[in-house]
Amino acid sequence: MTELYKKHKGTLEKAIEVCRKRYSWSPFIDNPSAKIHGEEALKNGKAAFEAHLGRSFDLDQPGTIGRVGHEISPYTQAPLNIDYPKADVDQLFSAAKAALPAWRDAGPAARAGVIIEILTRLSQETFENAFATMHTAGQSFPMAFAGSGSNALDRGMEALAHAMIAQREVPENALWEKNFGKDTIRLQKDYRLMPRGVGLVICCATFPAWNAYPAMVASLATGNPVIVKPHPNGILPMAIAVRRFREILNDCGFDPNLVLLAADEISAPVTKQLIHHPGCAIVDFTGSARFGQWVEENSGRSLVYTETAGVNSVIVESAHDLTAVITSVARTLCLFSAQMCTSPQNIYIPAQGVRDGDRLVPYEEVVERLVAEVKSLSENIKIAPNLFGALQSDVSLKLLEDLEKRGAERGTILKAHHAYDHPDFPQARTATPLMIELDISDRDFYQEEVFAPVAFVIKAKNREQALAQATSDVQTHGAIASYFYSSDPDFLSSGQNAFAEAGASLTCNLTGNMPLNFAAAYSDYHVTGLNPAGNACLADLAFVADRFRIVQIRYPMS
Amino acid sequence: MTELYKKHKGTLEKAIEVCRKRYSWSPFIDNPSAKIHGEEALKNGKAAFEAHLGRSFDLDQPGTIGRVGHEISPYTQAPLNIDYPKADVDQLFSAAKAALPAWRDAGPAARAGVIIEILTRLSQETFENAFATMHTAGQSFPMAFAGSGSNALDRGMEALAHAMIAQREVPENALWEKNFGKDTIRLQKDYRLMPRGVGLVICCATFPAWNAYPAMVASLATGNPVIVKPHPNGILPMAIAVRRFREILNDCGFDPNLVLLAADEISAPVTKQLIHHPGCAIVDFTGSARFGQWVEENSGRSLVYTETAGVNSVIVESAHDLTAVITSVARTLCLFSAQMCTSPQNIYIPAQGVRDGDRLVPYEEVVERLVAEVKSLSENIKIAPNLFGALQSDVSLKLLEDLEKRGAERGTILKAHHAYDHPDFPQARTATPLMIELDISDRDFYQEEVFAPVAFVIKAKNREQALAQATSDVQTHGAIASYFYSSDPDFLSSGQNAFAEAGASLTCNLTGNMPLNFAAAYSDYHVTGLNPAGNACLADLAFVADRFRIVQIRYPMS
Repeated sequence: MTELYKKHKGTLEKAIEVCRKRYSWSPFIDNPSAKIHGEEALKNGKAAFEAHLGRSFDLDQPGTIGRVGHEISPYTQAPLNIDYPKADVDQLFSAAKAALPAWRDAGPAARAGVIIEILTRLSQETFENAFATMHTAGQSFPMAFAGSGSNALDRGMEALAHAMIAQREVPENALWEKNFGKDTIRLQKDYRLMPRGVGLVICCATFPAWNAYPAMVASLATGNPVIVKPHPNGILPMAIAVRRFREILNDCGFDPNLVLLAADEISAPVTKQLIHHPGCAIVDFTGSARFGQWVEENSGRSLVYTETAGVNSVIVESAHDLTAVITSVARTLCLFSAQMCTSPQNIYIPAQGVRDGDRLVPYEEVVERLVAEVKSLSENIKIAPNLFGALQSDVSLKLLEDLEKRGAERGTILKAHHAYDHPDFPQARTATPLMIELDISDRDFYQEEVFAPVAFVIKAKNREQALAQATSDVQTHGAIASYFYSSDPDFLSSGQNAFAEAGASLTCNLTGNMPLNFAAAYSDYHVTGLNPAGNACLADLAFVADRFRIVQIRYPMS
Repeated sequence: MTELYKKHKGTLEKAIEVCRKRYSWSPFIDNPSAKIHGEEALKNGKAAFEAHLGRSFDLDQPGTIGRVGHEISPYTQAPLNIDYPKADVDQLFSAAKAALPAWRDAGPAARAGVIIEILTRLSQETFENAFATMHTAGQSFPMAFAGSGSNALDRGMEALAHAMIAQREVPENALWEKNFGKDTIRLQKDYRLMPRGVGLVICCATFPAWNAYPAMVASLATGNPVIVKPHPNGILPMAIAVRRFREILNDCGFDPNLVLLAADEISAPVTKQLIHHPGCAIVDFTGSARFGQWVEENSGRSLVYTETAGVNSVIVESAHDLTAVITSVARTLCLFSAQMCTSPQNIYIPAQGVRDGDRLVPYEEVVERLVAEVKSLSENIKIAPNLFGALQSDVSLKLLEDLEKRGAERGTILKAHHAYDHPDFPQARTATPLMIELDISDRDFYQEEVFAPVAFVIKAKNREQALAQATSDVQTHGAIASYFYSSDPDFLSSGQNAFAEAGASLTCNLTGNMPLNFAAAYSDYHVTGLNPAGNACLADLAFVADRFRIVQIRYPMS
């Protein structure tokens, strides 16, 4: 145990430093290139993924009372035909609780060593999991490799760094001496870090690992076992990860039941049963705003950390290079068919138009150019597969169809959604963005998050109205990411203040190859916790500091 | 603002160091001696207190819609006849919210400077507040001077230190650079610390400042205004403090409405209205377990930090010097008539007796000597006034009378409660401990906290049964402090582990002049948050880290 801490101490200290200075860094590789990984890596990963299909997933954990699993690939729209252990909830909690004491007593350093070993080993096996993520979440392969591979592992490492910072604030013991009358009292005080209990990690369908790894690591690093509850259509990537966690924990001399899987099917969900179990001490939830709110209100004395969803907005007020802005916004609307928690939905444009350097570009032209750019991306068959990926769920497609009808009655359909032809998967469930022009008064239409590739282009009377509406939407409906374009320093400053006051993080005037909604571990604080889109930040001290408590024992020094 | 930070930076850094190393330290004076404070200090403090009596308390704050206040002195049992502003709840929250932005924008360092200035000034005015505490809470003067003066201010300083540690983890900004394809993206990221909103601090009747100062400081240091809701019979000490907070804030150029008072009377309580107000973002509660649970369950999305009550136990298994043990336990049972959250209630003694060095002292003799020592303290008129103080509430007296009746039916009354004659206040509401011997099977009797000077001497079959029962009581009924005496290293170790597993902090084998239940700021973690006696620790990182959030703004570097 201590050897692993020594082995990984350099990485740990570096991660802590980067969390404090927040520059760009990663100990993992986000590029799937054969030049780095060898010619066989992709092929082997794909084969490893395919070996799972049509089989029982072998996960040796206690409390198995049957089999579950009914995942559909968004690319083939065929069942994966994999079944997983169906777990007895009581037995899961019992097994997790039994695993706790030795893990707790190992202490933060030993736990950190094991966790970095696990993250490192997972990073070496990204190909298999990337294919599993692709065929459950609908991500493109490159996105799955980076976003659900190294980027997600970085989020885990970031949570570990914060957990270590918090735990290191508590010394193991202290000597204390004070006079009471003529009596000098000398006490030794021992401070024991006590985990809360069993943590439940509820994963989302489209980006499971990216939120699950930090939650799992935050709980594990502070001594808490975890039960992972994957989305019914996103079991495989988490099952692969859980199995590896268990294997490596076991190799390191710990009880593998520190990490357990609770798979279910949409027809027989177990999430509420898990949350209501008296053994549940911590809930990490990623998913819909509606269910997230239920979780926040129904978790009793458990700690609850949520990341849900909001109505992310873009305000385009003015630019030094409007073409670059339009390119960036259009690309971000298309990325993974807007199925990311940071994808923008509501695009506010002032009716007077947008100043582009010296020229005032009329509102209509801005809209036209934005639509043209999205259309161009949608029709570019070379980049579409990697850009759009596939739709995770049929529900998104139905939402698009419904919105397209209702939108035509209310506003103007600027661009209908349509499938693109995936070169490798003719059956893929794909959709390019639906774009609807609305007036700012059409609040009922655009104030709800639509989990599908849809962009509302919202005509505001002026820039002040756009800003007021977008920031008010943050407070009432939540936002995880917001975007702002202005070349006017005064308006830029007002915008930054207004979004900050509304409790929203803001990306300003960003153009170029970086997707607007890319969130970097160790640098970007993801989710503010100040608006309805979630109550927790991944990752800050508040994300970890309450996952353990302190028991003290004091006694006279001999 | 910055000058105050410079002025107090040495104190702040020292406080941070001490919180990390947890040795004994205080920047304040806990001794009321005239040699330190001059001959006039006591007299002037008393005069300042007496000047409040029979008058309207002048507190210039917004939203006053009448007058309230009906405090009774436990020493004179006469009304203080002081009235305070009755505040309109909506207006309190509006005023607090309006004060927030400038305080937030001042930043952690400027806020820390102002807060230390306030704590320092309060420490120079302890005499007046000690008399106010004495005549509302019932504390003796020396206890009020130390426990509600410097010890309470130390708890505030400790909370500030933790708040600074947490806030310093977030840099003001960062430069971030990463390649995306051929494009190098260089971003500046600004991180803004955002307070949660208005904090509500609900004070208890017997030790208001000791929990209020850390809660107020934790919220203020992280940018949140606070509304202080004192107990209806403990308004004066908090009103004096609130007024000084306001004056000094104003002198430092800040809106005094950062600190507001919401006084009420028992006949028309405002606590629930304050908690349910949509502007309430944080609740710090000290009080009964029952109301604390209500607060935890009914505070919606607000952060809630509670310290309530439990059944604190003492296990006397063996000792190197039983006389010293009995002296310490007896003294702690008497201290402030057991009206402290750390006062022991349930004393477990094994039926086989207690080994004292080489001798096995029979159970009956242990009980007899403990009762004799409590009687001796109860009859010692020289020390009684400072040791026992007065009973804060009539309710405690009624509880004693009821228990004495019911106890005689169930077990054995070892010592009846009785008043002692206070030399200065013939009308004082006083009570020495009621001691009842029970069998370990009388659980219904001893498993509830009795807020009055009562000790249950519980006969256990053996030491293992005593330990099992005491630790099980922690988990089901809570405990803030637990006490353990054993000269057997193996049993001591089992005891420490069992209490830790139950989520209780433990004081072992402590004898001498220090009251067993003395909790030292910067060194003792007060309340574990792991059992029903409260969900928060005063103070650790978890007590402060979630009181602020982070909003980030990122934009291309120019």
